[in-house]
Amino acid sequence: MGNIPFDLERLVIQTLRKKRSWLGDDVAIEKGQLLTTDSIIEGVHFTPSFFSYEEIGYKALASALSDIAACGGKPLWYLLNLGLRSDDSLGDVKLLIHGMEELEDKYSLKLIGGDTFHSPVLFLSITVGGESDNPVSRSGAKSSDLIYITGNIGGSKMGLYALENKIDSPIKKYHLRPGIRCEEGLYLNSNYNITSMIDISDGFLIDSNHLADESKKGLNIESAKIPICPECMDFAKQNSLDLMETVLTSGEEFELLFTSPDDIQEDFVSLIGSVSEGEGVYIDGKITPPRGYRHF
Amino acid sequence: MGNIPFDLERLVIQTLRKKRSWLGDDVAIEKGQLLTTDSIIEGVHFTPSFFSYEEIGYKALASALSDIAACGGKPLWYLLNLGLRSDDSLGDVKLLIHGMEELEDKYSLKLIGGDTFHSPVLFLSITVGGESDNPVSRSGAKSSDLIYITGNIGGSKMGLYALENKIDSPIKKYHLRPGIRCEEGLYLNSNYNITSMIDISDGFLIDSNHLADESKKGLNIESAKIPICPECMDFAKQNSLDLMETVLTSGEEFELLFTSPDDIQEDFVSLIGSVSEGEGVYIDGKITPPRGYRHF
Repeated sequence: MGNIPFDLERLVIQTLRKKRSWLGDDVAIEKGQLLTTDSIIEGVHFTPSFFSYEEIGYKALASALSDIAACGGKPLWYLLNLGLRSDDSLGDVKLLIHGMEELEDKYSLKLIGGDTFHSPVLFLSITVGGESDNPVSRSGAKSSDLIYITGNIGGSKMGLYALENKIDSPIKKYHLRPGIRCEEGLYLNSNYNITSMIDISDGFLIDSNHLADESKKGLNIESAKIPICPECMDFAKQNSLDLMETVLTSGEEFELLFTSPDDIQEDFVSLIGSVSEGEGVYIDGKITPPRGYRHF
Repeated sequence: MGNIPFDLERLVIQTLRKKRSWLGDDVAIEKGQLLTTDSIIEGVHFTPSFFSYEEIGYKALASALSDIAACGGKPLWYLLNLGLRSDDSLGDVKLLIHGMEELEDKYSLKLIGGDTFHSPVLFLSITVGGESDNPVSRSGAKSSDLIYITGNIGGSKMGLYALENKIDSPIKKYHLRPGIRCEEGLYLNSNYNITSMIDISDGFLIDSNHLADESKKGLNIESAKIPICPECMDFAKQNSLDLMETVLTSGEEFELLFTSPDDIQEDFVSLIGSVSEGEGVYIDGKITPPRGYRHF
């Protein structure tokens, strides 16, 4: 999305990194605190006519919390920048906040401050602080580690397709209210040797390539083992969508892709491949560069 | 600015505060870290045709740093959310970053992370972390404390007037590159008993009322003692502006308004009044409610 050249984000990040300490992860660590920041903007990260105010609030906070989940950390607090349009009412704002409160209550988070202001487009910028004794990065995958993913994927992009094409399907919920994996990230990090982890918020292909790049390893993935959301197969068939292409490029969903030398048997985890020397992501033996959903 | 009802920000903040820990300051404290977040948006916080990219970068970071200065703290790091329009080039982004680098270098700050994305309007949301052994709040003013202010004020609004009316005057710099008082805030807090402090980024009248409200005290200010920017008197006369009204309602400048029982003799500080029991801000004995510049 967006008509900025595809490589500008990479160039901007390179420019920002120069002379600076930047982790290459979405999360920084300062004095033992995990810190991450994320924005969602009307028309870029969400189509306002598809979303209720509650769903916008939920998704904004979920997206930031997911970065802490991907470190195997526990979120503690957040700061909110809230840009409101001139026709947003107090009632709208209450709904937006209500969408965030669900996550606040679930994770015992607290809102510690922020800024509200007028804006030509609705947006939320959220900074989350968290903690972990042993945060997981994207760069620690080792040769012969196994590659796992939580949950199942593909629903967000198919949900967006349903919304855009006015198809009444329960699949829409995967786009409007994607689940996050805070407890699972923490649990995995506490109980197993997790060598690297990332959420797939930019889509499986983009984020698996991030993990490969940051770890300087090759990821070998079997497409048949990728867990696909239960309704996706039928939905893809009914709507003549390329199932695997859609699943691999679905963004805005927050399952965790991770590597570990351990044999992990958990009902919310699927084994999908293994790490090797080399570089890049191989799906069924074929090198597969990043493509898919970007906000840039 | 903005056509949202004037009281909506207050209502939003009340709604956000319910059930939450919110300091009433622009800065929160978590595990000994000072945390603040601030946004600037094209068309709301700045008129893009007036500003160079460097000035936008400078002002965005300056504005967030000033909140740490107002706690008497030392800024340490920041996180950046950067929304870029489709026609912003890498060269533009480099200039924007250059404007921030000046402040990074001056205060030995580091950029520890962030997010860049496409946006219909240029905006920056910045979270700053800092430290202080004894952070100053807005709520500690005591009866018979003296009221002080750093530097001199009024230049930002007159600078904006010059820009809007295409008047070629050096006064424009006060709007485009307002100074911040990080060293001074830290110095004052280290060397004197500072009971409350705030920056006047919303304008003298709004922020002095904030200080009075949060401290539950009355502020008695002598208008003749308010230090006015050197070029302001001539500029107001030449352009038939009400000098005192303009000075009191000038926003987007970052001088520090503070209270202390101490007799402070510093060349960058002016004594402008004293604190009493009661409530509200009295200028030359007359109660003066908040009015002026708001982004809401």
